[in-house]
Amino acid sequence: MEKPALVQINRVMYGEKQVFEHRSYRKQLMTTQKTAQPDHIIALDIPLPSREELSPETVKYFAACDEKLGLVPNVLQAYSWNEDKLQAFTALYNDLMLADSGLSKLEREMIAVVVSAENKCFYCLTAHGAAVRELSGDPALGELMVMNYRVAELSDRHRAMLDFAVALTTMPEDVSEDDRQELRNAGFSEKDIWDIASVAGFFNMTNRVAAATDMQPNKDYHAKAR
Amino acid sequence: MEKPALVQINRVMYGEKQVFEHRSYRKQLMTTQKTAQPDHIIALDIPLPSREELSPETVKYFAACDEKLGLVPNVLQAYSWNEDKLQAFTALYNDLMLADSGLSKLEREMIAVVVSAENKCFYCLTAHGAAVRELSGDPALGELMVMNYRVAELSDRHRAMLDFAVALTTMPEDVSEDDRQELRNAGFSEKDIWDIASVAGFFNMTNRVAAATDMQPNKDYHAKAR
Amino acid sequence: MEKPALVQINRVMYGEKQVFEHRSYRKQLMTTQKTAQPDHIIALDIPLPSREELSPETVKYFAACDEKLGLVPNVLQAYSWNEDKLQAFTALYNDLMLADSGLSKLEREMIAVVVSAENKCFYCLTAHGAAVRELSGDPALGELMVMNYRVAELSDRHRAMLDFAVALTTMPEDVSEDDRQELRNAGFSEKDIWDIASVAGFFNMTNRVAAATDMQPNKDYHAKAR
Amino acid sequence: MEKPALVQINRVMYGEKQVFEHRSYRKQLMTTQKTAQPDHIIALDIPLPSREELSPETVKYFAACDEKLGLVPNVLQAYSWNEDKLQAFTALYNDLMLADSGLSKLEREMIAVVVSAENKCFYCLTAHGAAVRELSGDPALGELMVMNYRVAELSDRHRAMLDFAVALTTMPEDVSEDDRQELRNAGFSEKDIWDIASVAGFFNMTNRVAAATDMQPNKDYHAKAR
Amino acid sequence: MEKPALVQINRVMYGEKQVFEHRSYRKQLMTTQKTAQPDHIIALDIPLPSREELSPETVKYFAACDEKLGLVPNVLQAYSWNEDKLQAFTALYNDLMLADSGLSKLEREMIAVVVSAENKCFYCLTAHGAAVRELSGDPALGELMVMNYRVAELSDRHRAMLDFAVALTTMPEDVSEDDRQELRNAGFSEKDIWDIASVAGFFNMTNRVAAATDMQPNKDYHAKAR
Amino acid sequence: MEKPALVQINRVMYGEKQVFEHRSYRKQLMTTQKTAQPDHIIALDIPLPSREELSPETVKYFAACDEKLGLVPNVLQAYSWNEDKLQAFTALYNDLMLADSGLSKLEREMIAVVVSAENKCFYCLTAHGAAVRELSGDPALGELMVMNYRVAELSDRHRAMLDFAVALTTMPEDVSEDDRQELRNAGFSEKDIWDIASVAGFFNMTNRVAAATDMQPNKDYHAKAR
Repeated sequence: MEKPALVQINRVMYGEKQVFEHRSYRKQLMTTQKTAQPDHIIALDIPLPSREELSPETVKYFAACDEKLGLVPNVLQAYSWNEDKLQAFTALYNDLMLADSGLSKLEREMIAVVVSAENKCFYCLTAHGAAVRELSGDPALGELMVMNYRVAELSDRHRAMLDFAVALTTMPEDVSEDDRQELRNAGFSEKDIWDIASVAGFFNMTNRVAAATDMQPNKDYHAKAR
Repeated sequence: MEKPALVQINRVMYGEKQVFEHRSYRKQLMTTQKTAQPDHIIALDIPLPSREELSPETVKYFAACDEKLGLVPNVLQAYSWNEDKLQAFTALYNDLMLADSGLSKLEREMIAVVVSAENKCFYCLTAHGAAVRELSGDPALGELMVMNYRVAELSDRHRAMLDFAVALTTMPEDVSEDDRQELRNAGFSEKDIWDIASVAGFFNMTNRVAAATDMQPNKDYHAKAR
Repeated sequence: MEKPALVQINRVMYGEKQVFEHRSYRKQLMTTQKTAQPDHIIALDIPLPSREELSPETVKYFAACDEKLGLVPNVLQAYSWNEDKLQAFTALYNDLMLADSGLSKLEREMIAVVVSAENKCFYCLTAHGAAVRELSGDPALGELMVMNYRVAELSDRHRAMLDFAVALTTMPEDVSEDDRQELRNAGFSEKDIWDIASVAGFFNMTNRVAAATDMQPNKDYHAKAR
Repeated sequence: MEKPALVQINRVMYGEKQVFEHRSYRKQLMTTQKTAQPDHIIALDIPLPSREELSPETVKYFAACDEKLGLVPNVLQAYSWNEDKLQAFTALYNDLMLADSGLSKLEREMIAVVVSAENKCFYCLTAHGAAVRELSGDPALGELMVMNYRVAELSDRHRAMLDFAVALTTMPEDVSEDDRQELRNAGFSEKDIWDIASVAGFFNMTNRVAAATDMQPNKDYHAKAR
Repeated sequence: MEKPALVQINRVMYGEKQVFEHRSYRKQLMTTQKTAQPDHIIALDIPLPSREELSPETVKYFAACDEKLGLVPNVLQAYSWNEDKLQAFTALYNDLMLADSGLSKLEREMIAVVVSAENKCFYCLTAHGAAVRELSGDPALGELMVMNYRVAELSDRHRAMLDFAVALTTMPEDVSEDDRQELRNAGFSEKDIWDIASVAGFFNMTNRVAAATDMQPNKDYHAKAR
Repeated sequence: MEKPALVQINRVMYGEKQVFEHRSYRKQLMTTQKTAQPDHIIALDIPLPSREELSPETVKYFAACDEKLGLVPNVLQAYSWNEDKLQAFTALYNDLMLADSGLSKLEREMIAVVVSAENKCFYCLTAHGAAVRELSGDPALGELMVMNYRVAELSDRHRAMLDFAVALTTMPEDVSEDDRQELRNAGFSEKDIWDIASVAGFFNMTNRVAAATDMQPNKDYHAKAR
């Protein structure tokens, strides 16, 4: 007990060779497993069609994804077992996230991530966290949305928008006219409020579909726009 | 303090004339207000189109609602300010609630109500509570789903289905393979699990759109199938 | 995937015959069971006396209930296994709910229902929800108290009263002078505050006795005053 | 930074004279205030009658309290502004806490304290914590019930009883046949279950009346049976 | 049911001999067990050294504890299986609780207790509750910190300090500049805020070490400064 | 409303030029702000010493950090305003995270991250998330620990370890012998359990110091080991 703490610190910092623990970590995993991320798209035993089995429209759509995004998002592959469901899902997704709106695409992605953080959705945090990093050019913004948006330095507009999305996620029964008024005070129009509510609502849906099916994001997202 | 409690009880029961409090209740409300239910469809100041302003397809659709249901659900009127959004919403709704599924329509409505009970969504509890009463022919079932589904005497299948929907609603981050296995043990197929997740997810979305906009149900639902 | 969503909607609305699911629902229940509401008064195996076995005072009291209410509330039948307990319960109930107070009977019933909603008490929501509908002449008010009182359009007085009752139910440790002052600001006297606290407290008791014993409400309440 | 931590410890332990902070604490309080415990019986401005103003029965009752307990519990004084309410309260209290039961008086007091701990009720923790210490002759038992009953070494019977009381307090909506069966397995009869539920329910009521009125316990309880 | 409640009360108070339940309580415990407090220092099977096995510095330190406090706190004995860990722990403890600070020692102990109350830590509530009673000379203050600090009559300074410590304990993710400003408004310096945070943080650590190991306080604390 | 959803999707995917939103995001931030991450080390106005102002030991220590880690962690800079506190903190940190233990360094970092995820600590998630990625060579493992460790494919040992750390974080009052036994069943020794508890406890402390002071991580962590 005699040696002062600093001595111990220095011993640790200098005297001990830096041991990378990759090897022992691998041993803890199953032999062929390279990562802790599950290897399936979904944990339900529903056969997903190969590209050739898909309708021409879906083939074309997936090709467009490949070209534009460099990947077909796993959520689309997951839904492809039933093209009616795939179409209904993508139509709503595209209306909410890509169509004209008073909210920028980045803002909609920020909502997606803070909602998904409340619900701890691995799929959506990964995929939409990447989108926030990419659209903003600010990797720290993506991390802040995933980890704790309250810490971020945000405009009043963004603070109000995200506070509303989080309140709607965690205690929808308490949302009231006061909350809507906060959004108006921050400059949002009535239709913007509809859009904030719709995007926040949408990710409360998809977070749960992903959770229930253990849906896994494409691994390529992890390194994007860091 | 001398008289035994029963004397007091009897005095109350017999001696006092039953006073209906309608009048004083009315006075507490604003003079022209007949009910505590807000009078709007949504609390956002977005003009909703009249029937003539709608596209022919929507006119036809609303006419079908009138004929089949005796009303156009307010949620459809709320969405009618933007027919793209209306179509995306109804397409997903109809796929989930009305298309072929291993889940009966009643089962999907039961999920709708227990999810909405967790989120305390007045709109969805009212509209889908009515649907449960109507589809089951058991008014108490509707009340049990609204008030506390845990109290209901349910088949193992229904218990497992609703427990999963509620877990997915209240703690999606904790849903795991064990929960999926419970559903399989209760006889649900992989696709049924997808459908349970999708319906539970959907009402987690709509509950929040309704909460954010203070969406009000058609008052006709209250007395239906009692 | 080709047909637009509206076609699908219309097919569903028009082409499919409305199938009432009563039959399959019945099959899911046990053969002789007509409703999902459990068939007992309480789930404890305590023999409840028949009318002839009761004391003359209780017989008279139950007869009064029959005459005035058209039923003997199951809670009274549940307590009748021990007339000392029955008397203690009814004496307190009658003092709180029926005796003179600055709170109207409807207001006390509104408190009963919002407290019971927080605790999800099937018995009390059913019995006192009916009382709210009956005393107010506003069926929607009963539904709003059961489903989410925050949505109701209420006078400042009623809003303050119910907010206090709910805070006292969900986080009694946080109730402070500020909360009492809110009630005073809404026009309540010191004795009114006592009464609000006592009624809210009482249903926090009875909700738990009902939950612990799985006490079931008289089925006649469901259709009352709709 | 040089001196090892132990040196610092020793300096603190030996070199520094033990300063009792009574004086500065007093200064932080208002000048005449001797304790942080509020000085009222309740924080509502309701005049409480002097002994002479009470009915002869209540005078006699309070005299009995003085003789047997050495004090009149403040809760009785608080209720004395309305002797009907006082009588209804004491009748129920006495039936639950003092009448014959399969539960010992100590067991009922243990339930009282663990329920009050969940609700953080200063009045009931103080008064009934003292009762547990007194009835058991084990001061640590009283502290364990107040602070965290889960830590106590308890018989299976007591563990089951308190687990049920706490579940009923914190999540009454989830209590089910399984929970009742746990009590039966621990040796409780059907009537014992009723009594456990009733006592737990009762303190969920009184905790809230005490919280709403800021009811203060007699200060004599603090030093009792330590 | 005839006799009025007061008769019953009086019978209970007068007619029934006061039965101390010590004997039956003992029977519920194991035969040799005198108290419900577990008999170990920690529930992990790690041999703790006897005094002779300790280093001279620790022997001296424990002797100082004996002399100054009349006991060696069990937490120190628990850590003594590894003197490096013991030293690291005590160095941090002493810096936080005993070194110079803008916070008085009593204030730091008050923070210790309210944090431990949120985490329901039997060890820390017992040991530091005793310290609050001792340093303040106000036994009720100790009980209020343990049971519900919100009820205590506190200076604005103490209220702000404890509110911050509790917020930091229960929802650290929500603490923001507004909360820091509240502390500044109550007169705390920037370094005081650091100290409040550090003490509150420290007990969030030790509460969990105590919980994980079922660490038991010295029984002598219970009767101290009552 | 006529065009099928896929047409709309394709228009969005193909017809619209991908607009990077960097510019408008910058405008939402203050003009000179390049990132949403706050620019301070801590939000308290405590002057932090320059390197020259530090003691020789600390200068040496920071130089070692620079050399080994490529940076001096901001937490050390934050504590440097008081070298006593810095030493107490680092001594404990180094004992827990770097000294010999039955837990590997990676395992201790995994505990650090899952605890910090429960508390949503931006500092610790960033710094220790990087450590998990680096030590494991599995970037997805770092993301899984940050986002939702429950989703990760883990050995039984790691699952048990993290479940315990999370339970200890979120409900320390409920941790019991059963939880310790789960760890033993997964192969942990008594001393390993102490270490798991200590590391989990430590991050419950530092998460709160970071939250209370708005401590910001070095920005270099974000891109590390992706």
